[in-house]
This record gives sequence, structure tokens and C-alpha cells, in this order.
Amino acid sequence: MQNKHLQISDIGEKKLIERIIKKSKDFNDFTNGSDFDSYIGDDAALINFNKNNNNEDKDDSYLVATSDLLLEKSHFPKQMSYFQMGWKAVVVNVSDLAAMGASPTGILISLALPINLKLIYFDEIINGILESCDKYKIPLVGGDTNQADQIIISGTAFGVVEKIKAMKKSGFKKGDLIAITGEVGLAALGFEILKEENIKIIKDEIKNNQISQEIVDLATQKALKPEPKLDEGEVLNQFASSATDITDGLASELYELYNADKINNRDSNLGLQIYEEKIANEPIFKEIAKVSKILNKDPLDLILHVGEDFELLFTFDGDIINNTNDSNDTNNIGFNIDFIIIGEINNSNKVEIEYSNGKREKLSSKGYEHLS
Amino acid sequence: MQNKHLQISDIGEKKLIERIIKKSKDFNDFTNGSDFDSYIGDDAALINFNKNNNNEDKDDSYLVATSDLLLEKSHFPKQMSYFQMGWKAVVVNVSDLAAMGASPTGILISLALPINLKLIYFDEIINGILESCDKYKIPLVGGDTNQADQIIISGTAFGVVEKIKAMKKSGFKKGDLIAITGEVGLAALGFEILKEENIKIIKDEIKNNQISQEIVDLATQKALKPEPKLDEGEVLNQFASSATDITDGLASELYELYNADKINNRDSNLGLQIYEEKIANEPIFKEIAKVSKILNKDPLDLILHVGEDFELLFTFDGDIINNTNDSNDTNNIGFNIDFIIIGEINNSNKVEIEYSNGKREKLSSKGYEHLS
Repeated sequence: MQNKHLQISDIGEKKLIERIIKKSKDFNDFTNGSDFDSYIGDDAALINFNKNNNNEDKDDSYLVATSDLLLEKSHFPKQMSYFQMGWKAVVVNVSDLAAMGASPTGILISLALPINLKLIYFDEIINGILESCDKYKIPLVGGDTNQADQIIISGTAFGVVEKIKAMKKSGFKKGDLIAITGEVGLAALGFEILKEENIKIIKDEIKNNQISQEIVDLATQKALKPEPKLDEGEVLNQFASSATDITDGLASELYELYNADKINNRDSNLGLQIYEEKIANEPIFKEIAKVSKILNKDPLDLILHVGEDFELLFTFDGDIINNTNDSNDTNNIGFNIDFIIIGEINNSNKVEIEYSNGKREKLSSKGYEHLS
Repeated sequence: MQNKHLQISDIGEKKLIERIIKKSKDFNDFTNGSDFDSYIGDDAALINFNKNNNNEDKDDSYLVATSDLLLEKSHFPKQMSYFQMGWKAVVVNVSDLAAMGASPTGILISLALPINLKLIYFDEIINGILESCDKYKIPLVGGDTNQADQIIISGTAFGVVEKIKAMKKSGFKKGDLIAITGEVGLAALGFEILKEENIKIIKDEIKNNQISQEIVDLATQKALKPEPKLDEGEVLNQFASSATDITDGLASELYELYNADKINNRDSNLGLQIYEEKIANEPIFKEIAKVSKILNKDPLDLILHVGEDFELLFTFDGDIINNTNDSNDTNNIGFNIDFIIIGEINNSNKVEIEYSNGKREKLSSKGYEHLS
């Protein structure tokens, strides 16, 4: 029998979600997999929206729906402006649409606010929400307001994606390459730079020309006003074999793909192999490393185990690049995005990193986890 | 210039929502009303989900989406079990679908929980969510988990409704009848009965045969484990000219219809007239009145100004009843639901009540309002 004194913190977020998924399977029998084609752990739900009375699909697109709840105490650092809080609430949801390769249709925002919040700050939150909606062409279509002792913003975004283009966390095969849409670790660095104890250190190092103002601005901007990779998602959906957005750290997201593959096929022995060298090879890595060192942080730890970058992590068949190069015809794949190849899918049944010194080890899955 | 010291509590929920709607109009120009056909203040958003590349609608149904955020401190009375919290989070959202006449498609649930919550209580919340999903045939398709210092459950439900059947808060015309799907005030009475100071009083009155156990059970059940009028909504969508669900008190909801009509047509002089007699005529009213009196409450105040009943308030062309009775053919309208006619639409440009003593006055719009 279950220990009556167990608290949810003894279990942690990921196991709690698994628990919900397991329980929901006992209940959701009435759907029989026909109404939605995703598992609860994916970035967003894929729903067969249009079915006629004979239960046949009337069209070839999914309704994509995703929900993210942001709380002031957990998600908004002290240096974040009210505008940026509203902005971020939209971005985290749009990022989930991007990870599925979907185009935005609309967003609902529920707000819970302290009763003594100044009206000018309320207006700033709303402006942040609406400017972000405007930028990503996702109309605000509804919501709810409530009272709470901290600022809480719950967003639900929905969108649409052609069924054959929808990107899930599973779907890759042996030999596929692993890639990211941009260098990660910048947002994590930004949050470090913003810490009270670091502000003077950073100021002095800029004055002494040890680090550039540019990298500091880039990192803090990425932390405070992130951008979802929406356009990239709509290109990737033409050729990626799987995808997710990087919110909890690269390592944690690699395990998300690994686990999704296992859920899809219990007997799969697919593994994910990444290389420190490929990540460290990026010009910006040297800058991240320099600032990290000053703040006594391991840059690889920021990259692997923190997150909040909202870059996309994806897999794809490497032959596509070769074929495209051979034929000199780039239009047949629509490859007009930048990305960094960081590894490949193999048969190891593990998630591993090969360090620059040649040592290879199992990647720690630790990442930011709520409720633990 | 706006007073910098103004707090949101100086404005109140309704005016804050109006403020969001006004601001969003400046931003959402890119939608031009073509993507969604509702205004933010309605129970749920109506979205043109399937459009082909020529921006033509591919089908005759709306995607219906609605979001409600429940907080332990505001929405869950002390006597509510963990199971009932989960249950209610689904019900409030399904009730909004019912108010639009929609059939459920799926629901996303985001949870924020205290880290020291016992796992057995977590399981109860999830069971409440899943049993409610099962009862209303709305699959749980995704969500999010977070940490907070109180239990927060944010739900987003979506559904589908034929465009010609979608019920909005506006759409009624002069002469239409006003009706409710069942007597209101029971949930409000239930919350009164559950108050600590009233428990002994109620127990004694039952013992003395002054009130029945049945009415006490009915009222507390309605307060703690409400049921959305989903089937009723799917019948009403065939003939109602407008509808909403009663969450903030009957008076407040009548004003919701009144205001929606004005937003739709600035020059409208339509008014809503209800009669105390028609409400008090219901057999159950006498029972509500008896218990209310014992608890020093005005039953009409519970009915008009509290809410949480999740009955539907709707309007319809009264000729439908007459025609149906004349032809003795009930199938052509599918009128297989119970309802109580409480008034009619007139040209008064007001929301008025006529008391049983013949006195008529403007109804106070006070209802439960957050952030005020």
C-alpha cells in the first residue's frame, strides 16, 4: 500500500506527470485514440478536430493545443518588467506550437493578480501580452481574471498543422542527426548575470574590457524577453523526424526525446549521442565560456542543465543535406534556416555525451524540475 | 493623465476586462474579425479553425475554446474535498462549452501545487479531474505542472459547434422569452449551510423536522460538486437566441446579456424584464426560502446575486412553444428539456425585476466580482 505520508516533492514533476498519464489511460477509454493522436507528455496535444458523423476525418490538419502556467515566484525574476511578464506568457505557449511545427490560431490568457497591483503595471502586463500576440500573429481570443497573492498568467495557445508535418518528440530513427536552432546556454547565463551579487562584477569586467557589452546584452535579453522559434518550426516541419523546444535544459530535453521514443516502441534500443566539441565549436560559445568563468559557472552546465532558451531541438535524416548539396537545388527542401548539428541517433539505448577530451559518458538527466 | 496610484481594485474585474478588450482592438487588427467571431467577453471564443489558403472557410463549424483558472483561496471552500476541486476545475470549463451549445473535444489542465501536498491528495485531485472528464466525455489531452503556495487549477476546454447553432450572449430580440434550465440559488444556499457557524443550526433544525435533509443535501451537493448543463446546451442550440451560464449570480448574468447586446448594436434599446413571482413559483423555492430564513439570508439575494449554479440562462422566441403545441409535433424542435420561464425581452433599455407585490425596479448588477 502507498505510504500515506509521501509528499509530491518526494516524487517530482516528471513522475507526477507519468502518474497522470497512467491514470488517464484507465479513464480515457472512450476516446480510443481516435480523437487525439499525441501523448500527454508532448509539447502540445494533436487533436482530430473535424470529424463527420461517421467518425471519419474531414480534413488533413490537426488542431494543436498547449497550456503553460507561469507564476511570479517561479518564473519571473526580480529584474523582469511587467511588460516582459506578459510577453513571456505568450512566448512559452507559442514556443510549444513551434515545437510541433504548427501555425498559431489563437490564445486564451487567464490572469490572477494581487488586488493592490497598480493599474499602470496591469496595463504593462497587457501591453506585453498584446505586443507578443501581435508579433507572432496569434490573436488573443479570451480568458479569465482572478485574485491571487502573486502574479499568475496561464496561457493556452492553439494552432494548426498538416497531419503529415506535425512534429512529435518521437519519430527519429538510427542515423538521424540531432540539431538545435541556435546556441543554448545564453538565457541561463543571462539569469546569472542578473543576480544581485553579480551585477557589480559584470560592470567592472566590461569596464576593463574583459567581456563585451554585447554578450551581456544578448544573454540578459534572451533571459528576459525570449523569442519562440516559430518560423523555424514551420520550416522544420517539412523534414524533421522529431522536435521539442528547449525549456528545461538540453540534457533534460534529450531525455524527453529518448523517453518519447520508448513510449512509442517499448523494444526500441535507439540512443542519443551528442558531442561537446560541436557545441563548443560555435563562436559564441567562447564568449559564453568567458563570462561563465568570471561568474564561477561551468558553461557546459549552463548549456546542458538550465534551459529557458526556447531554441528547438530536433532530429532529421542527414541524407537530406547531402542530397540537397548534390543537386544544387535548395528549394526542394526549403532549408532556409540556421542550425547546429550536435550529434546523432545510434543504437546505444542511452543518452550520452562525448567530451572534447574523447571521454564518453551517460548524460545526467538533471534539468530544471518543478515540485522536487 | 492616468492616476499613478490607482490600483486594480479601484477598477474591478469587469472594467479591467473591458480595458483588455479595448486595448486588444488596437493590436488585433491583423485578424480583422475573420479568424474569430466572438468578442472576448463571451463565455468562450468562436474560432474559424479550418480555412484554406484562399481564406475561405472549409467547414460549417466553429472551434470553441474557453479557459478558467481556479485558486484554492478564492474558489475552493474549506469543506471541498480534493476530489471535488479536480471535479470543479473541469465542470467550470465544460459549463462554458454548454453555454455556447458546443460538444466537448478535449481539455488541458495546468496544475500549480504546494510542494508539501501529500501524494494521496494529489491522486484525489487527479481522480476528480479524470472522473469529470469521463462523465462529460472530454478527454484530458495535456497540461502543465508547477509549484505554488496554494492549489491552482487552470483548465482550457475546447469543443465544436455548428456555426448556425452557436449561442452567444447577444442575439435576442424584442418579445423573446427569458428562461433558466433550473432553479438558481441552491449552490449559494449550499455555501451558507457549509459555513462553520451554521452547521449546528442546520443539524438542530433537521432534528426538529423544521427542514428536510434532502434540501440540505441538494444544496451542499450543488455547491461542492456542480454539474454543467451540457446536454441542455446541445438541445438549446437548436432554438435559443442567446445563452450564458450562471456563475456570478442571475442579476449579473442578465447584465452580461444586456451589455453584449449593446456591444453588438450600440443603438439597441432592448431591455430584460424578470418576475419574482415566476422564480418564487417553483416548488423548490419554498424550501430554499425556509432554510434561508433560518440562516438570516434573503432567498432572493442568494438567487440574484451569488451564483455558482452552472444552470444556463437563455432567451428564445416564445412562438416556438405555441407552434409546437398547436401542431402537436414536439420532434420538429427537440424540446426535450425542462426550463423555467422567468421573464421577457422588451424595449425598456433596462434590466428590471417586478416583485410579487407589483413593484418594479431596476435590478442591481452586483454579483460576485473578483479584484474589487
